[in-house]
Amino acid sequence: MEDVPDDVRLEARRAILNFVGCALGGCSHPALDATIRALGPYFGPATANVLGRAEKADALHASLLNGLSSHVHDFDDTTPKNYIHPTSPVASALFAYASANPVHGSDLMHAFILGFEAESRIGNSVYPAHYDVGWHITGTAGVFGAAVAIGKLLRLSEQQMIWAIGLAATQAAGLREMFGSMAKSLHPGRAAQNGYGAALLAREGFTAGPHSLEGPRGFAAVQATKYDLSKITGGLDTNWDLRENTYKPFPCGIVNHPTIDGCIQLHDEGSFEPESIRAVRLRVAPLVMDLCNQQNITQGLQGKFSVYHNAAIGLVRGKAGLQEYSDESVHDPLIKRIRENTSAVGDAAITEDQAQIEVALQDGRTFSKFVAQSLGNIHRPLTNRQLEEKFRNQAVLALPDYQVERLIELCWSIDELVDVNTLVQTAIPEQGAAA
Amino acid sequence: MEDVPDDVRLEARRAILNFVGCALGGCSHPALDATIRALGPYFGPATANVLGRAEKADALHASLLNGLSSHVHDFDDTTPKNYIHPTSPVASALFAYASANPVHGSDLMHAFILGFEAESRIGNSVYPAHYDVGWHITGTAGVFGAAVAIGKLLRLSEQQMIWAIGLAATQAAGLREMFGSMAKSLHPGRAAQNGYGAALLAREGFTAGPHSLEGPRGFAAVQATKYDLSKITGGLDTNWDLRENTYKPFPCGIVNHPTIDGCIQLHDEGSFEPESIRAVRLRVAPLVMDLCNQQNITQGLQGKFSVYHNAAIGLVRGKAGLQEYSDESVHDPLIKRIRENTSAVGDAAITEDQAQIEVALQDGRTFSKFVAQSLGNIHRPLTNRQLEEKFRNQAVLALPDYQVERLIELCWSIDELVDVNTLVQTAIPEQGAAA
Repeated sequence: MEDVPDDVRLEARRAILNFVGCALGGCSHPALDATIRALGPYFGPATANVLGRAEKADALHASLLNGLSSHVHDFDDTTPKNYIHPTSPVASALFAYASANPVHGSDLMHAFILGFEAESRIGNSVYPAHYDVGWHITGTAGVFGAAVAIGKLLRLSEQQMIWAIGLAATQAAGLREMFGSMAKSLHPGRAAQNGYGAALLAREGFTAGPHSLEGPRGFAAVQATKYDLSKITGGLDTNWDLRENTYKPFPCGIVNHPTIDGCIQLHDEGSFEPESIRAVRLRVAPLVMDLCNQQNITQGLQGKFSVYHNAAIGLVRGKAGLQEYSDESVHDPLIKRIRENTSAVGDAAITEDQAQIEVALQDGRTFSKFVAQSLGNIHRPLTNRQLEEKFRNQAVLALPDYQVERLIELCWSIDELVDVNTLVQTAIPEQGAAA
Repeated sequence: MEDVPDDVRLEARRAILNFVGCALGGCSHPALDATIRALGPYFGPATANVLGRAEKADALHASLLNGLSSHVHDFDDTTPKNYIHPTSPVASALFAYASANPVHGSDLMHAFILGFEAESRIGNSVYPAHYDVGWHITGTAGVFGAAVAIGKLLRLSEQQMIWAIGLAATQAAGLREMFGSMAKSLHPGRAAQNGYGAALLAREGFTAGPHSLEGPRGFAAVQATKYDLSKITGGLDTNWDLRENTYKPFPCGIVNHPTIDGCIQLHDEGSFEPESIRAVRLRVAPLVMDLCNQQNITQGLQGKFSVYHNAAIGLVRGKAGLQEYSDESVHDPLIKRIRENTSAVGDAAITEDQAQIEVALQDGRTFSKFVAQSLGNIHRPLTNRQLEEKFRNQAVLALPDYQVERLIELCWSIDELVDVNTLVQTAIPEQGAAA
């Protein structure tokens, strides 16, 4: 841990703060209630906590539930170089572990940083072919991160860690076809749960193939038509993908962010009323059309993957918070009308951080906005204060204010906690409040 | 169920008999002990039984353990048209369900047949590209079979079944790089567990993408470079893949069976002593070399995927039972010497049911054998009596003789059981014996 540079440690704390906030923002989502109804009768002894919820579970199911809550609003972090949402699979398992086992904050952070980097490096080795064909890389790479992180806390031997990585490889799953449904957040959830389980199995001598990543029938060859294994091991000690992590200002697919950013700017400039809009034309990066070309939507979750909806909410409401992705917002008559009168084209000259927006009013006037660098991207990162504000906006949905403020302090000082369970317990609603 | 032809029902009973026998043959394997040590502390309420074991578990973990035991010796059934081991993922979940919930034998058989056919048809749609690139299709197709079978017993609505299939699709995993390790049998185990879980989640409204099989980022497009979706739905009511199921006489990769068959024939002809063998030359189907080209092996499990080992045991011992794939057999000096003096070449003129064997003795004489149709293949199927004998040889490892004989009767009459738990309880060692 002494070998980890200070700026990387700071970024790890920012990632943890953002993760805990997202878990609290998502902890009451119907996906969690459905999971508890369906699988609760199969939960093991209730030794672990789920962030933001009164129910306890075994640590494997707590990992699953943390993974669901922290990703279900698509508000968690993203590494733009490989499109992984990297913290959820790793931290979901670690906080479940820490709620059931004593672990020092410094050890947890060490395991987190190792898991994060392993996951991101394995993702880099198969990106972009792996993602382009349709894998949800957060699930497929995430299971490695959870296995390595929990394996580190379990002090696995080298042979055991090879098995744990193999057991992770052979459970790497998650299809992009699930985007817009609850199953998208099942991916980091199962990644956390199965990675945790892989480490437990490996510790007891459950064997796996020794060449799970690089073998001719291993992860890279099977799940990517092109890959570069040197990206897994190149520049260890000097390159840290945590330095390239970003935090979303808006709870939706990151490729929509430049569009939202520009539409909010147009709204805030106040030159026209949303009611007066006749049509909106967008020029966006081609990937936006690949991921978010849904116009006729009926559910809140689909709104996260509709560039048309995202333009409409920015122009109508001047913000894009959790409420803008509710079913109610999708059915809002003005948002619906503007969404249906928005057109979009992919343009290879537009980067994924950019958007060109043109608004035509009913009186014939037009307004336009070009976004060159989207808020929250690596060149315009959220400040620590902005991250805290994002945290508060989500955490107040689950916890009283004094717990929210205490949690922010604990996240910033996590390395010094003698037992990380102090933090986890502060992220649980009081029994009185829950009852 | 009335629409299922009689010969298909008989084949389903044969598949069940073979499955239960394989589960009893594998139930004491170290892979199960390791899993119970690792995951036992996370098991839910002990409402379900594991075939052949005294320990109880929740039904999801019981599904996992049944999947491990029934496949760990590679002795379970195979559909040659798609190389799926079809019964394990489906029946592992169904018997776990039936041990914890009352279910009539006729309903269980109906669910089994539906699950089997769904799994095999989805496998057909992506075979061979999917298998060739390195997917262990037993895991990837198996999860669909378990989801459909349990979904049938749970009486899912059409929408719920679409979600269950979607949740299965997005958990379809298992790499061929695991062959020769315990992780291979994790594939049907997790397929059973995750398919069962998919049906439970879908029942509670956990949503998945609606186009999980056929969508542009769905199972077929992501996991196969070539696929034919018409194979999923073509010939429903007339084509039954159960009719094309086969049962192994030897507990190893089926592509080795013609080699073993021919070597046992040479042994039984008695023209030479194994000690006098100088070298063995094999001509085999090219797939054999792709799957089983391991010569320097040290562990019993590896022997299942070594065509050299399989030739040696046939010639030396005249049989290939579970004992021939123990670590002890791999280290047997005579078997080792012959294994190391065996060469093999792939020849596209040799089908996967054939093998050409040439044995050169130290005195210069040679003997050869050509196998045109391997025992156990679809043209030389095991008879019901041979299946019972295979069952006995495995079941006696776990149960007293009177339970073994009673179980055989119960498997043949499973359709008539008012409660399938009668069968499951007969497959559990007596408490006295286990204690």
